[in-house]
Amino acid sequence: MAQSPPLKDDLDIVIPTIRSLDFLEMWRPFFEPYHLIIIQDGDPTEVIRVPDGFDYDQLHASCISYLDSACRCFAFLISKKKYIFTIDDDCFVAKDPSGKEINALAQHLQNLLTDEADFVRGYPFSLREGVPTAVSHGRWLNIPDYDAPTQLVKPRERNSRYVDAVMTIPKGSLFPMCAMNLAFNRELIGPAIYFALTGNGQPIGRYDDMWAGWRVKVVCDHLNLGVKTGLPYVWHNKASNPFVNLKKEYNGLFWQEEIIPFFQSLVLPKECTTAQKCHIELSKQVKEKLGHLHPYFQTLGDAMETWIELWNEFNSPA
Amino acid sequence: MAQSPPLKDDLDIVIPTIRSLDFLEMWRPFFEPYHLIIIQDGDPTEVIRVPDGFDYDQLHASCISYLDSACRCFAFLISKKKYIFTIDDDCFVAKDPSGKEINALAQHLQNLLTDEADFVRGYPFSLREGVPTAVSHGRWLNIPDYDAPTQLVKPRERNSRYVDAVMTIPKGSLFPMCAMNLAFNRELIGPAIYFALTGNGQPIGRYDDMWAGWRVKVVCDHLNLGVKTGLPYVWHNKASNPFVNLKKEYNGLFWQEEIIPFFQSLVLPKECTTAQKCHIELSKQVKEKLGHLHPYFQTLGDAMETWIELWNEFNSPA
Repeated sequence: MAQSPPLKDDLDIVIPTIRSLDFLEMWRPFFEPYHLIIIQDGDPTEVIRVPDGFDYDQLHASCISYLDSACRCFAFLISKKKYIFTIDDDCFVAKDPSGKEINALAQHLQNLLTDEADFVRGYPFSLREGVPTAVSHGRWLNIPDYDAPTQLVKPRERNSRYVDAVMTIPKGSLFPMCAMNLAFNRELIGPAIYFALTGNGQPIGRYDDMWAGWRVKVVCDHLNLGVKTGLPYVWHNKASNPFVNLKKEYNGLFWQEEIIPFFQSLVLPKECTTAQKCHIELSKQVKEKLGHLHPYFQTLGDAMETWIELWNEFNSPA
Repeated sequence: MAQSPPLKDDLDIVIPTIRSLDFLEMWRPFFEPYHLIIIQDGDPTEVIRVPDGFDYDQLHASCISYLDSACRCFAFLISKKKYIFTIDDDCFVAKDPSGKEINALAQHLQNLLTDEADFVRGYPFSLREGVPTAVSHGRWLNIPDYDAPTQLVKPRERNSRYVDAVMTIPKGSLFPMCAMNLAFNRELIGPAIYFALTGNGQPIGRYDDMWAGWRVKVVCDHLNLGVKTGLPYVWHNKASNPFVNLKKEYNGLFWQEEIIPFFQSLVLPKECTTAQKCHIELSKQVKEKLGHLHPYFQTLGDAMETWIELWNEFNSPA
């Protein structure tokens, strides 16, 4: 007897796209039982075909960022599910070293749900119960996730190294979160996974997931939640254009040198006991401490507050 | 034409043993060009045979800790080489997933000498030059490095997971350093790699390398030096007796719950600009902040100071 797919009714798969969704054919055996939310970015008159047999909502992302993968966070807002898995439309099924196709979704659920871990000599016994995992950050083979300068310098670089590990990122360490293969517990951390204002009309692009990742890690550290990275792998197929990326990233390449130390030294007050409260506090500190970089950070701080208002509206218990 | 073994004249291999050194036969292709320092622990009248063809000094370890693997640090003191690789006599050559025998020493040297790294999007450009690597902490397949309680609970556990990665341990994160497969740059960090007083006559055993690892990481973080962990693997063959281990570890199982937070919150003053100065400062803080746990920590603090005096004597430029 076939096993029912795990958490079939508790998970939405979120896919932002401006292209076709043909990549879903390859994922059919793993994704078909789940509900999809497809965020159509770009021209809303364009018709994007979803392969037959998938259950989906299709949304136009004009209300938040658009012409940027940040549009996906609109789906996080309106989902009613406990878990989200989001994947880019240029990510395909990868194979493990034995040649077996990797069910990325199943591994993410394992990362989010299981708390099994082995501890070697010297690990404090009082910490071995661990903390709940809020975020599972998967990796990718083939095309690396480089910034434009690195893309320009290493155009032929490909990743073929399969690292058979899932790790919890240490408390106090930030990480560069990429949204192309990401899952999270929406109830625990959803309000903090806001992808900022990037892309069309904004002075920065492509930093949407970085922004979210830095904030999410600070919030998880504060709330005693875990962020895992490592397995599962997906096969990343399309190298984006480094010249286009350089234009989008240009401001961010300077700003990140100040933004990262800002997040590293940020302390959230004890009163911030939920992801919402943490995010509101972050919005204030972004305006106060990063405002000198560019007026954009005022706009961003305001948008972060609006995001929480929307979150509370869409996710009120009533 | 055969290549000369890398750093043949700049590295000592340190092996503590109370048993036979037959394990060296398996390492012959990789170790034979190098100089060995063999620390004979236990009964000094016992004759330990070194397989033919190896170049070695054999020392009796009665001057520092004995009947404990901590004795190995005597060799770090008297070595005149820039690099140390230390390995236990129950560690054999492991194979990578393709079946190829792993030259652990070569991988350690690569970890210590190369600074190649790939950085994904969002990593600060100002930090990509990295820091010199002071310590390379290798891993092990087969018998895990468990404390006695875990050994008792999971007697059949074996590690067969080959994680193909070398990582720098984040600044601010401690790690449980195991000395069975360890290499380091003696010039950069040698004075801080003191294995404490453990074993015979002391109220604690088996914490020698943990002790060293916590201290070393704090010192490396302060001096802006890197600690890498991951590859190379060795094959760990002998499970030690969990009941004997429990006796040795007993006090440490309580103490580590206070020792680890002590090291996590420890701040070294700016004046500590060398590993020696850091270690002297640590010795004071150990006495002051851990002295309430047991008189042992006074003795240990004194021994840490003596260690630095000896280090300076053995390693003075004149």
